[in-house]
Amino acid sequence: MHRKSIMIAEIIAVGSEMLTPFRQDTNSLALTAELNKLGVSVAFKTILGDSMEQLTDCARIALRRADIIIFSGGLGPTEDDLTREAVASALGVGLTRNEAVVEALRARFAKRGITIQAINFKQGDVIDGAELLPNANGTAPGQWIATEYEGKPRYVVLLPGPPKELTALYADQVKQRLQRVVPQQHIAIGQLRMAVVAESEVDARTAPIYMQFTDVQTTILSTQGEIQLHFACAKPTIEEAQARVDEVLSLCEHEMMDFVFSADGESLEQVVLLMMGMRHLTLATAESCTGGLIAQRLTAIPGSSRSFLGGVVVYADQLKTALVDVPKPLIQQHGAVSEEVARALAEGIRTRTGADLGIGVTGIAGPGGATLNKPVGRVYLALADANGTETRELNLTGDRERVRWFTSQHALSMLRHKLL
Amino acid sequence: MHRKSIMIAEIIAVGSEMLTPFRQDTNSLALTAELNKLGVSVAFKTILGDSMEQLTDCARIALRRADIIIFSGGLGPTEDDLTREAVASALGVGLTRNEAVVEALRARFAKRGITIQAINFKQGDVIDGAELLPNANGTAPGQWIATEYEGKPRYVVLLPGPPKELTALYADQVKQRLQRVVPQQHIAIGQLRMAVVAESEVDARTAPIYMQFTDVQTTILSTQGEIQLHFACAKPTIEEAQARVDEVLSLCEHEMMDFVFSADGESLEQVVLLMMGMRHLTLATAESCTGGLIAQRLTAIPGSSRSFLGGVVVYADQLKTALVDVPKPLIQQHGAVSEEVARALAEGIRTRTGADLGIGVTGIAGPGGATLNKPVGRVYLALADANGTETRELNLTGDRERVRWFTSQHALSMLRHKLL
Repeated sequence: MHRKSIMIAEIIAVGSEMLTPFRQDTNSLALTAELNKLGVSVAFKTILGDSMEQLTDCARIALRRADIIIFSGGLGPTEDDLTREAVASALGVGLTRNEAVVEALRARFAKRGITIQAINFKQGDVIDGAELLPNANGTAPGQWIATEYEGKPRYVVLLPGPPKELTALYADQVKQRLQRVVPQQHIAIGQLRMAVVAESEVDARTAPIYMQFTDVQTTILSTQGEIQLHFACAKPTIEEAQARVDEVLSLCEHEMMDFVFSADGESLEQVVLLMMGMRHLTLATAESCTGGLIAQRLTAIPGSSRSFLGGVVVYADQLKTALVDVPKPLIQQHGAVSEEVARALAEGIRTRTGADLGIGVTGIAGPGGATLNKPVGRVYLALADANGTETRELNLTGDRERVRWFTSQHALSMLRHKLL
Repeated sequence: MHRKSIMIAEIIAVGSEMLTPFRQDTNSLALTAELNKLGVSVAFKTILGDSMEQLTDCARIALRRADIIIFSGGLGPTEDDLTREAVASALGVGLTRNEAVVEALRARFAKRGITIQAINFKQGDVIDGAELLPNANGTAPGQWIATEYEGKPRYVVLLPGPPKELTALYADQVKQRLQRVVPQQHIAIGQLRMAVVAESEVDARTAPIYMQFTDVQTTILSTQGEIQLHFACAKPTIEEAQARVDEVLSLCEHEMMDFVFSADGESLEQVVLLMMGMRHLTLATAESCTGGLIAQRLTAIPGSSRSFLGGVVVYADQLKTALVDVPKPLIQQHGAVSEEVARALAEGIRTRTGADLGIGVTGIAGPGGATLNKPVGRVYLALADANGTETRELNLTGDRERVRWFTSQHALSMLRHKLL
């Protein structure tokens, strides 16, 4: 992107728990999305523990290399909460205890009938020159510092670690302050979401398009059987930015037509539920190898009961017969994992429930269960409606989790195509 | 922990995509687990983009503050892959192209009938003084450097970014090299997993125990209706370390008895399937508000078909009657979300499928659906066996996803208690 003066940010997550194998900094993702909207680029993320020396050192490093430095965590009342002290030390300034914060803490504890320990008052220590940012969701206020370091303007923000507190404080207090200091830009964003297509295919077909839009930043993401193209463009006016995003988005959408299920951010589940809702159609599912995954994905969406009636999980063969009337001889003749059984599942659940659409799934998710003719990853899908039943054979790779997830992606995609 | 000379590590993840709002460094979690096993503490994690200047600068900072520095990413064949050059520059040494790597690349491309572009050969550039680490899963080899920086011993490791390549390379090549240079220690680890209990309760009850074990590092984690206590202890012999972990673990297990479902790392799903398998019992489920989530969690486990027959997802009321014989008047009289309907679901699915155990779930997951008497989060669970049916009323807080997940946790816990 061509920008006159792009500001760069560093996000510093403070807390020893984020240096264990079990926990990760996640605040930086939401902060990055917000900073990008202002045209600020995140160039560094640093994660460190609760050590005064290391924290001060990291603060100094960040002050040298970033325009905007956002700390998350280390603002609580314990001895391990050292962000205030370390930032003051790195800036070479002092801390002054704010009596209003102390009084508020005292009142809060008194109200709950608890004697306050003196250590709590450190949450009222304000870095000299900082503005206090009131925290509506917790006891530790944030801090905002506009200063100079080695002759360069620097903006330092201290935010509490709990995501709920951090997000609210950013939205209520930090965003407006950054908007005033970041060079005025308008950023438009857009996205295309595609299912059951390879990332390499999407890239090969869309790169010749998006490469021509040198003023639009394009990111391609691949997650769990879904490919996303994200577009961002910065211009002097939002209209100019939006026009460029819309242009590249619609060209790429046209190129990938069949695979694109959303240009507005909805998930695949949301899209099929929306389409069924508009057409007053109902659906029921009969799942074997996916074991309820398709039903679970659909019912995770609020309001799904309008279109999704329910279904069966027929893991054992006798249940295929008992609950969805798959003829026992059919299973014996073709095997439980067969096109014929998938068809019988889809038709059986449709008949049993009176739904307009029936989905049937049977396959080998692995790691066991493979036969000579049917390897792990072999799946049969069927989709029945009043006009008949269509079926598909899938040959998926990967472990049990992947086979099951991709099967659910293919089933929902098949349904989406039927509803088009 | 008392250790004679603990070594500290910095993990540096290289790649601009990890500075977007969409993607995160996850390699560092697996690396941290591995390093901790050797008694190495991770003190810093740094994430940065593909900039030669920034990367060189970060390498220098890491060389000053960490004994072991592990880079992930930036070893590929494109112009953006700069880790080799930057580390060489930070160390003040050169790069020499390794002809064996170049030949292997040439052969690999020739085999696939593709003309190799010259830029690919940079994957054979070896930092002077480095050992090449062959990569069985990709084209870019890793590198191992044992050197000095500002008079201190330093170990620098370059690993490829793709998790599969990184994990295999660490296990095959890096672990043994680190073992030779890290002060010999033996680390024993252990964990307790608990369900449907509050983190604060676990901490209040176990802290008086684990605080006495000053030589054992205890971490308490809370995720999705599950609390985990992780223990780690370093001693001159593995027997001493294991004895201390076993001691604190069994004391904490005794304290939290009712809630502990695993002391060996199994998931709640695995535990109930194991218990049913040992007793040759079968299970079927009839889910309303969880929409297949319980079935999906159970069938995610390989071999679950031995005990889990299947079930129904009866989202629409007419399906509760059609598929599991819940009497229509019962629904009219008590409402679909009622103890009576939960009981009828559990008993109905048990009868329909011939399973030994039947689970019935009905509730209001939200955001809609609340009535005057039944708020969002009200859920009824029932568990039927040959001796009768027990029921439970839950009043859960949180959004749709949380209510559904916690319901599945409670249902699996209820089943576990029945199987004890």
